[in-house]
Amino acid sequence: MSEIRKDIVTGVWTIIALERGKRPYDFEKQSVIKNHEVCPFCVGNEEETPPEVLAYRTKQGEPNNSNWKVRVVPNKYAALKEYKAIETIKGFYETVTGYGIHEVLIDSPKHEDTIGSMSHEQLELVLKAIGERHQAIRLDEKIKYIQVFKNQGAEAGASLQHPHWQIIGVPLIPEYQKKVLKGSKKYYQEHGKCVYCEMLRYEQSAKVRIIQDNKYFVSFAPYASRFCYETWIMPKQHIYDFGGLKEEHIKYLARILKDLIQRYESVFEGISYNVCFLGPSQEPSTEKDFHWHMQVIPRLGNLGGFELSTGSYINPTPPEMAAETLKKVIIKKR
Amino acid sequence: MSEIRKDIVTGVWTIIALERGKRPYDFEKQSVIKNHEVCPFCVGNEEETPPEVLAYRTKQGEPNNSNWKVRVVPNKYAALKEYKAIETIKGFYETVTGYGIHEVLIDSPKHEDTIGSMSHEQLELVLKAIGERHQAIRLDEKIKYIQVFKNQGAEAGASLQHPHWQIIGVPLIPEYQKKVLKGSKKYYQEHGKCVYCEMLRYEQSAKVRIIQDNKYFVSFAPYASRFCYETWIMPKQHIYDFGGLKEEHIKYLARILKDLIQRYESVFEGISYNVCFLGPSQEPSTEKDFHWHMQVIPRLGNLGGFELSTGSYINPTPPEMAAETLKKVIIKKR
Repeated sequence: MSEIRKDIVTGVWTIIALERGKRPYDFEKQSVIKNHEVCPFCVGNEEETPPEVLAYRTKQGEPNNSNWKVRVVPNKYAALKEYKAIETIKGFYETVTGYGIHEVLIDSPKHEDTIGSMSHEQLELVLKAIGERHQAIRLDEKIKYIQVFKNQGAEAGASLQHPHWQIIGVPLIPEYQKKVLKGSKKYYQEHGKCVYCEMLRYEQSAKVRIIQDNKYFVSFAPYASRFCYETWIMPKQHIYDFGGLKEEHIKYLARILKDLIQRYESVFEGISYNVCFLGPSQEPSTEKDFHWHMQVIPRLGNLGGFELSTGSYINPTPPEMAAETLKKVIIKKR
Repeated sequence: MSEIRKDIVTGVWTIIALERGKRPYDFEKQSVIKNHEVCPFCVGNEEETPPEVLAYRTKQGEPNNSNWKVRVVPNKYAALKEYKAIETIKGFYETVTGYGIHEVLIDSPKHEDTIGSMSHEQLELVLKAIGERHQAIRLDEKIKYIQVFKNQGAEAGASLQHPHWQIIGVPLIPEYQKKVLKGSKKYYQEHGKCVYCEMLRYEQSAKVRIIQDNKYFVSFAPYASRFCYETWIMPKQHIYDFGGLKEEHIKYLARILKDLIQRYESVFEGISYNVCFLGPSQEPSTEKDFHWHMQVIPRLGNLGGFELSTGSYINPTPPEMAAETLKKVIIKKR
């Protein structure tokens, strides 16, 4: 029997329908990687991107030199840009100036690196650089929300193979975040507790959806998983904002994230996925009720008309099953 | 300069960012069609599906015989099924029994047919059969919303190539529909008019987003298009519910829908897309403020982490440009 599970924060419901997973399939999908003359993110091609806004280097050096480890540049094909002001034009419809910030973080000099293949130290540098840019972008009061995310692989919406993150600062609170903020605030008002702290407590006692934990973080498959094999990484302590993570936290976050991606890569060869930070917004009132976390969305099947037209989901893999499969993977040390 | 456009009904905003369309692309995608021994939807394989609930035949005949033109069967791999009752279990999380109805409508005996290739008469039969099942399913008071949709092609989430629609009756109002119903009701309360009637009036005078119109319907690219080349088909008269369409309307709906899909197929060879009905719910209070329509969502690129993690959208093709491209296609008579 399938069941309909409600997300405790957003109220979004997902049909968990194991039967759906058994249906026959007519298609085989292949993403072929084309050969490019020039990868704009590879070492030596620094002039192919706009001048960097941040970089960590192997040794002191001029900006935009080739001896970088991690590099952040404005997106050459930005969805949003900084303008003098945000204007709202209201006729029959409403439009806002495309004000915002859109940056690209290049994870590694290696063209074929993934989170699973890079060293812990490299991934720590990536997370540290995200934190630095995050703190810089939030100083702009016109930015209401910063979305940090990675598209890994064509199925996840990536246009380039070279590993990179995107950081987009937008002048409005997005739809999902509105629901998340409203839901977590409501829970706090009703229970006097952070809903995510409570969720972690519950999951740690239920045990069936946990994949791994370390000193500061837990990785688990959320109860109302919208996507097949969706997982979240959450700090054990109540940390409401990525800026609240200290250097030691970042160390452990890099470890649990690499561990999780290695598990995915071991179960599903060449998997495409998104890694998305959740929060924070600029609203200071969320300190007590919001709890920073990361969502990993594997792209194991294409969303269909049901999902796109309803904003609700059908997931053929119960999260308990996804967690069990990912948990039992034995990670080889690399 | 990009702009952020707000959907007048749902409030969902989309970043219209022409610049994004120019970015380089590393991947080539191919969906290879596997050969199946048996297509469960082909003529002669009627025993591969559960017994039919409706069929139109070339001549009188026994149910589940091979002489059908359109056939509706319960989904063998149903996301939801009918049970005695709907139970809500509330612990730390909330779960509802997976109660619902999930049917498959097989459009045509021809394995490779599409909306663009089938005759107007065949498409009329399809729409008529959807209407019949729709009216039958809504008699179940436990069903709160019926989603009618088509996944065409692997990129659109289809698992089988043989053309089919899905009809899912769910016991809860989905997320997007909640917003649509709330937004259209609010507009009606504030303006005393149906927001969609007003939208059509505005679009018909603005002209820049209209693709085609006939006696009863208009096809157009919506102002705040979330998806690249998204289009809607809307009745000119205020018809709040698919059940309100008469036989003559269905004739014209088949014509404008086939016309639109032919335009897509002419511009993008082998295109995958979803066609989704919008509405109605069971709420009778929406008669004045809601307006039935159809949304076509082409799957021209994969959604990325931004869309999946925010519920807001980045669309590289302004709808004015999409409409212009689709409008200038010359349809060959088939």
